Amino acid sequence: MTATVTPLRPGKSEPSLDPVIALVAADMNKVNAVILGRMQSDVPLIPELAGHLIAGGGKRMRPMLTLACAKLLDYPGDRHCKLAACVEFIHTATLLHDDVVDVSDQRRGKKTANIIWGNPASVLVGDFLFSRSFELMVEDGSLKVLKILSNASAVIAEGEVNQLTAQRRIDTGEDRYLDIIGAKTAALFAAACRIAAVVAERDEEVEEALDSYGRNLGIAFQLVDDAIDYVSDGETMGKDVGDDFRDGKVTLPVILAHARGTDEEKQFWRDAIEGRRVADEDLARAKDLLIHHNAIADTMARARHYGQRAIDALGPFPAGQAKAALVEAVEFAVARAY
Amino acid sequence: MTATVTPLRPGKSEPSLDPVIALVAADMNKVNAVILGRMQSDVPLIPELAGHLIAGGGKRMRPMLTLACAKLLDYPGDRHCKLAACVEFIHTATLLHDDVVDVSDQRRGKKTANIIWGNPASVLVGDFLFSRSFELMVEDGSLKVLKILSNASAVIAEGEVNQLTAQRRIDTGEDRYLDIIGAKTAALFAAACRIAAVVAERDEEVEEALDSYGRNLGIAFQLVDDAIDYVSDGETMGKDVGDDFRDGKVTLPVILAHARGTDEEKQFWRDAIEGRRVADEDLARAKDLLIHHNAIADTMARARHYGQRAIDALGPFPAGQAKAALVEAVEFAVARAY
Repeated sequence: MTATVTPLRPGKSEPSLDPVIALVAADMNKVNAVILGRMQSDVPLIPELAGHLIAGGGKRMRPMLTLACAKLLDYPGDRHCKLAACVEFIHTATLLHDDVVDVSDQRRGKKTANIIWGNPASVLVGDFLFSRSFELMVEDGSLKVLKILSNASAVIAEGEVNQLTAQRRIDTGEDRYLDIIGAKTAALFAAACRIAAVVAERDEEVEEALDSYGRNLGIAFQLVDDAIDYVSDGETMGKDVGDDFRDGKVTLPVILAHARGTDEEKQFWRDAIEGRRVADEDLARAKDLLIHHNAIADTMARARHYGQRAIDALGPFPAGQAKAALVEAVEFAVARAY
Repeated sequence: MTATVTPLRPGKSEPSLDPVIALVAADMNKVNAVILGRMQSDVPLIPELAGHLIAGGGKRMRPMLTLACAKLLDYPGDRHCKLAACVEFIHTATLLHDDVVDVSDQRRGKKTANIIWGNPASVLVGDFLFSRSFELMVEDGSLKVLKILSNASAVIAEGEVNQLTAQRRIDTGEDRYLDIIGAKTAALFAAACRIAAVVAERDEEVEEALDSYGRNLGIAFQLVDDAIDYVSDGETMGKDVGDDFRDGKVTLPVILAHARGTDEEKQFWRDAIEGRRVADEDLARAKDLLIHHNAIADTMARARHYGQRAIDALGPFPAGQAKAALVEAVEFAVARAY
């Protein structure tokens, strides 16, 4: 199934992550070296389990943002590489814990760590990576960076608990859902971008602009993920289509279709989200209803709204290769997987 | 069942925690206020779950050490109270995750959080408390404290993973076991004491002395816990006697009895630790073997050895109320629960 996408850049070629990947390629090698070096331990299970996920084909989206924002600011130093590794460690720790929380069995097209090594190992190696991330930040020595990333970490955990308490609740509204993804996803995107301004010693306004870029991109990114879960194929996204549906996750497509549905449809969504409709025919009906009520298309429209805000947050920065790459990264995020 | 205890302070009254509790009572009120204030969140499940454990009758042993060490150094300020709260948050986060890892159902005589609210909530609220702890440290603003506590956190997680990989392995030796408890238990005791020297702006030697006090006390504390698991009653320790045995945990009493046992006894221990002997009669035999080989008494002797080292680490400090209370806390730790 394919949804209609209104491009943010009419008349141009397909947006791609390639420009931003090329922009930060040299720095990303340094980040990877830090990651590999600092996930080591005398306890062999730690690098083994961490490596499975860290070396396992993630896009390194968040550290990439730190590096690209540093380029945007012409930062000449090296500190951002270590800090980008911190961001990736925090992200990896949350993924390890998320997979335990969600009882996931697949991520990025591979078995999850909790399936291979068990929940205890995933919880504890997540804790290790999280602690190691703070050790690395302390080595860098910026209290401002520590404040930004410790706050982001607390907000992420708060968002995850918030999501947990909204689990299987069809009465979750769009506002609360935006609060949740603003915390669990967008906060780390925002922090990843913001710390580039800190290491480059730029003023509060620059920090705020990069924070806004990252936060809006993060929301757009998550909304597109939510839409993809209903329309893509398993191979493209590394997990099965309809996983969110079967897990009873209330995401924006569901919120919109439920809000716009008849009483009978509302009851269908309630049954589905509460776990009483998990058959393939139920998923098929859910997809029909999402299409019928434009819920996928409108989730994508919301994503483009936040994507546009991310792009506009870059307004204060001079045109150039870095800015163009950051803009195209947003365009890619809202157009991907179709 | 009662083991024979050689008192560290012959001829004196029963050692007690009362002197150290009295010493820090006023400061502990401030710590409790910080803890209560900073475990709040707009997500109600967070204070609810955290409060269950934090308000649930723990001894506040680790923050008490921070406060008592600050008294020992005549520290006149207030920073140690917030940092003592950080230590308790880290400890609480590790307890929440431990109970998930160990599939525990009881702690401190109450149902564990994972039983009441489920594993996902325990994992995520643990993450929240851990992040909040770092936020508090950042507010305090000492990079040295941040370094000590982030390092301790990484070491704890590493120790927990190490313990996980030693799980149900009867070939775990005493050295490896000491490595594990040195990391998972003693590292936070050491850090809790050491940060008092940092806020009091004392030199490296004072830091080292307090670190040594805390580390040795932590090891003694854990060894006594291991012994208690085989000899106390459920009411005293808030969990069931023999829990470690039924969980196949290789603790020092088991290591000693196994090392000293006949071939037939070695096979018994292997069967037990690998989960093939969990009946009451098996536990009864285990206790007989532990007594027969002096494994409980010698575990307590080892604990007293580390306790004595903790006390001797206080050598450089002048006699006084604080020192006496810290010494008696050690004596209490190695004599308790009989």
